[in-house]
Amino acid sequence: MSTITDRDLTALFDPRSVAVLGASNDETKYGNWISVQALRMTGNRSVHLVNRRGERILGHPSLRSLSELDERVDLVVITVPAQGFEEAVDDALAAGATAIVGVTAGFAELGAAGKAVQDRVVERVRAAGAVLLGPNCLGVLDSSTALTLASNPLPAGRVALLSQSGNMALELSQFLEARGHGFSRFASLGNQADLGAADLIRSCVEHDDTDLIAVYCEDFGDGRAFVDAAAQASRAGKPVLLLTVGGSEASIRGAQSHTGSLTSDSAVIDAACRAAGVYRVSSPRQLADVAATLLGYGPAEVHRVGVIADGGGHAGVASDVVEAAGLAVPEFTADISSALRALLPPSAGVTNPVDLAGAGEQDITSFVSVLDTILQSPAVDSVLLTGYFGGYGSYGENLARAEVDTARAMAETARTHGKPVVVHTMHPDSAAARVLADSGVPVFRAVEDAAGALGVIAETAAPQHPAGGESEPAAPVTSDAYWDARELFRGAGVEFPDAQLVWTCAEAVAAADTVGYPVVLKAMGLLHKSDSGGVALGLETAQQLTDAFTRMDDSLAAPAYCVEGMADLSEGVELIVGVQTDPRFGPVAMVGLGGIFTEVLADVAFALAPVDAETARGLLDNLRASALLRGVRGRPPINLDAAADAIAAVTAVATAHPEIAELEINPLFVTPKHALGLDARIVLSSSNIN
Amino acid sequence: MSTITDRDLTALFDPRSVAVLGASNDETKYGNWISVQALRMTGNRSVHLVNRRGERILGHPSLRSLSELDERVDLVVITVPAQGFEEAVDDALAAGATAIVGVTAGFAELGAAGKAVQDRVVERVRAAGAVLLGPNCLGVLDSSTALTLASNPLPAGRVALLSQSGNMALELSQFLEARGHGFSRFASLGNQADLGAADLIRSCVEHDDTDLIAVYCEDFGDGRAFVDAAAQASRAGKPVLLLTVGGSEASIRGAQSHTGSLTSDSAVIDAACRAAGVYRVSSPRQLADVAATLLGYGPAEVHRVGVIADGGGHAGVASDVVEAAGLAVPEFTADISSALRALLPPSAGVTNPVDLAGAGEQDITSFVSVLDTILQSPAVDSVLLTGYFGGYGSYGENLARAEVDTARAMAETARTHGKPVVVHTMHPDSAAARVLADSGVPVFRAVEDAAGALGVIAETAAPQHPAGGESEPAAPVTSDAYWDARELFRGAGVEFPDAQLVWTCAEAVAAADTVGYPVVLKAMGLLHKSDSGGVALGLETAQQLTDAFTRMDDSLAAPAYCVEGMADLSEGVELIVGVQTDPRFGPVAMVGLGGIFTEVLADVAFALAPVDAETARGLLDNLRASALLRGVRGRPPINLDAAADAIAAVTAVATAHPEIAELEINPLFVTPKHALGLDARIVLSSSNIN
Repeated sequence: MSTITDRDLTALFDPRSVAVLGASNDETKYGNWISVQALRMTGNRSVHLVNRRGERILGHPSLRSLSELDERVDLVVITVPAQGFEEAVDDALAAGATAIVGVTAGFAELGAAGKAVQDRVVERVRAAGAVLLGPNCLGVLDSSTALTLASNPLPAGRVALLSQSGNMALELSQFLEARGHGFSRFASLGNQADLGAADLIRSCVEHDDTDLIAVYCEDFGDGRAFVDAAAQASRAGKPVLLLTVGGSEASIRGAQSHTGSLTSDSAVIDAACRAAGVYRVSSPRQLADVAATLLGYGPAEVHRVGVIADGGGHAGVASDVVEAAGLAVPEFTADISSALRALLPPSAGVTNPVDLAGAGEQDITSFVSVLDTILQSPAVDSVLLTGYFGGYGSYGENLARAEVDTARAMAETARTHGKPVVVHTMHPDSAAARVLADSGVPVFRAVEDAAGALGVIAETAAPQHPAGGESEPAAPVTSDAYWDARELFRGAGVEFPDAQLVWTCAEAVAAADTVGYPVVLKAMGLLHKSDSGGVALGLETAQQLTDAFTRMDDSLAAPAYCVEGMADLSEGVELIVGVQTDPRFGPVAMVGLGGIFTEVLADVAFALAPVDAETARGLLDNLRASALLRGVRGRPPINLDAAADAIAAVTAVATAHPEIAELEINPLFVTPKHALGLDARIVLSSSNIN
Repeated sequence: MSTITDRDLTALFDPRSVAVLGASNDETKYGNWISVQALRMTGNRSVHLVNRRGERILGHPSLRSLSELDERVDLVVITVPAQGFEEAVDDALAAGATAIVGVTAGFAELGAAGKAVQDRVVERVRAAGAVLLGPNCLGVLDSSTALTLASNPLPAGRVALLSQSGNMALELSQFLEARGHGFSRFASLGNQADLGAADLIRSCVEHDDTDLIAVYCEDFGDGRAFVDAAAQASRAGKPVLLLTVGGSEASIRGAQSHTGSLTSDSAVIDAACRAAGVYRVSSPRQLADVAATLLGYGPAEVHRVGVIADGGGHAGVASDVVEAAGLAVPEFTADISSALRALLPPSAGVTNPVDLAGAGEQDITSFVSVLDTILQSPAVDSVLLTGYFGGYGSYGENLARAEVDTARAMAETARTHGKPVVVHTMHPDSAAARVLADSGVPVFRAVEDAAGALGVIAETAAPQHPAGGESEPAAPVTSDAYWDARELFRGAGVEFPDAQLVWTCAEAVAAADTVGYPVVLKAMGLLHKSDSGGVALGLETAQQLTDAFTRMDDSLAAPAYCVEGMADLSEGVELIVGVQTDPRFGPVAMVGLGGIFTEVLADVAFALAPVDAETARGLLDNLRASALLRGVRGRPPINLDAAADAIAAVTAVATAHPEIAELEINPLFVTPKHALGLDARIVLSSSNIN
């Protein structure tokens, strides 16, 4: 799997010489398709075709073996069958290759043996200072170096496309091409045995010809490396768009049966995307839609949308789909509405949405003046034009010319104001619509796609400050006992009620005198204290405590007991705060409303751990029932700062203790004054249980 | 507005003779466009063009006035300016017209005067036994009678398109045409001054050439008539698809400024759609997608989807979008998976989603055998094929032929099993994809559209039994006092704690002895009892009651008091049950979780009132937090039957008392045993306050 250190990918994207191992005349084989593409490069770099029978391939002589070469070769593409792959890699390394592209597939079918081959090969590749793309990949392209080593050609452009699936890469490229975009690079990730998505994203950050990075990935490998690389790209002004799977039980089942991949929960992937500032899309078309908008305007605030329509129906439907996409269509301030009123007929809508009510037919330049007026409003971040525009030209030649001029002027107006303008039209193939698209104004055939693209952009923010930097090395924890978990969290700054560990009834009564009644008695050494009768709440007197102790000790014979002060539960909210370990993204913080809300609403929010107090506040604000925290029906608001500090402390414990697989404070009881841990639990990784 | 009684629309859709008032040679005018279309009908029916200057129109002679006609005319299209509209209607009626199509627009701009013109005209039209479509409409088409009286021609087909917006009609027809569908009828609804959506839907139920009714409507007029007509169509096997606005504050703002329409809350429209079995879509494209699927298969169960892909990426993405659309991708039973295992390579996914893993390339007929196997599973209602199908044909002529044969066989297999099969492909324009579409298997360019169409179909059920039939006439309520509200609900069968109305402290104490302590004391005659100190809970003794009474009487001097038994609140759930009056759809029942849940989660469900107990149960089940009702964390489940009975009773009260604008029991406290009203409120319509 990929490592954090940068790999040198020069030979992969800009080799001086290339060899295709397994070149073939059989038009159903990758060895043929890749050879066709490779031969297009003979003007730029030396290209060698290797065929074990030494046949002429596509009219060109071939070598029987790489060993026949009398020069070093930079990059070798291997398309031979799986059983010959290991030897082919050895041959490539022997020929001096520093980049290998493994097109060869079939390792999954070999099971453990296939895995073993890949592991051995990667070890040798790395030892030789080389890199391996794939195996089971479709090749690599770089339009800036005229490298064409994939099964299909792609038009040149500004998008780097990195994909773990061949068909998905094809579909993504189709949708992007249909939007007039081309590719700076294409790398098929395949099995990511050596190079992973993170390495390739990182290489694109430095790549001048890449403006945007589109990724289809099922297995994130070293998830933190992926997050770091994507955050780096985001900060460099190169948006990273991600399409992945795992949003459903079925896709997780499919991915596991398909590749044996370790998949992450979709909520964890969302958390990783937030950490990295990655635009997560849900389909190939949406990827192209969002890419077109970002290529036109760059990352921008788009949340408050001005809607312009040339009809009441389109105004209404657009407003509905915009709000359904999580955006706002705010009412204009009076000055903007007055300015629009002066431009438009009496029956026009001027509050947002704007309905031109025939102004477009009467004077096509109304579109420009209305757009300009709305973009002046500080209350509007972006504009969606929806309806008939592009169709007026069909009424006559003069109007057709005027409509194209209007399109040009609208694109210019959008640029002047620096706010994204997107267009839905019933006439997406019209000359005016083409002018818009060519000027960087994305044009949509369906209004919900325009709204959806803005919605994805609106919900994506700049990368969070790097996670993982704040954990301090700490002595490993070796006990998962309640008392030790409690002490660990207390040591990290989380407040708990006063408590003492006791072994006898007399000690319990003495402890209660110290912590003060009412107290709680808890039996130690039980996995589920509450369910097995190991917790007695609200003990008011020494007698009650004694009775509870006796009953508990008789039935449970616990190794020890804990006497704790009983918190006043009359005014506050129960939270659940935990950290779990994702197989790809490592420790992930989980914050939710406790008690009934956890079970009934599954109202939880996730973030890569550790989180600082500010991010923790954001998690609390993101809960669906967050209104509860701010006080409702006469309840006072709880102390959100104290809650956030406690959450941050819990996540810091997790990252300082990689030996802990899972930890939790449940409930964290938060009152208007403070946040108090009422129960604590840690689960050690199996290798750390002693 | 439309009435419930059926109108005779023969003259509208099948007139023997037609006249166009306002025929024109000016190519920018409706009077020109409609005349062009009208002249296409001269082979079938007499067509008269009326131009006040008697010019030759489009090479044909015209009349100066309808009075020059020596025969009765069935249908008159009026395209003259608004100021001449009223006279034109009179002329049409004088000429014997029984159908008038008012294309004339501009009534909104005339404000109250425009409304008055329409009202006068409608009165005269109805008195003459005629019908009026519009005004402000784009005309009417009927392909079964070769009637072409709209501004644009449309291809013939099986869809009746009824639209209140011209541009929206155009866009809907574009998307439907792109899917290969045409139109049995098109009626532009315009201002619905006389005929409304309900009348036109009803006329399509009887229309043999119509299989499906597509409606764009902003104003539902008599909403109950709309529901009745749509339910009638649904029961006749003609699905009604509705696109409307009002899902956002902005679209409501827009519609109100646009037409002055009374808009209904989107949740109320959803309730109306459920009552009528209407498929509610969110965009023009989705309407066409759902229509194509319904035209292929009719209404069908589709919720559990089998996914077939020729690649892991497509399998995963499809599964995710299918589940995101509210559908399920259930794991196959072992027998189905075994059967698939026998058909497919070892690396194939066979659990659902199915990944063919190269089987398609090796043998294109694998698509048929896999589809057939999955459709045999009783656990699967529908199938989504996603990925590359349609692209195999590009590998050679034999494969191209085989792929087309495979497409044909798949369509046949779908028909045989009677389960909907939908296809997403990267090659929607391929010969194989065209064969699928022509065979009634809808083909989608984007996988989320396929999933979205299935999602809309899955969430639409058969129409509910007619609402409104159960209310009995009742003596009008004249008091909105708490005690009277309580008695009204008790009379309808809702249980309340024992209570007595009292005026003095001594009476209060005597009442408490009867109902039993603890009691609640409530002051009468206050709008907000609780907020103003007019409620005292949990009074345990005569002394406490006396103190509370004295305090309350001193500060509030209420006209009367109510002493109620205090319910045991330790075990139960607070519901809120109410009925409000929608301006279009009349009484609408609202059920939600009370207390904190109402405010924090706005967790409420709606249905047209009255509802029976079964529908009431459905509303409770639809609450997001409905798990709470079924018992969580050791709480016992509440008595859902008692709750449902109480809800049904409350809604029956509302429909029996049209003079009540709004009523509510909040809370309805439901325990494991019974449902108990703890507070009640009614608001009389302003005309009924005495």
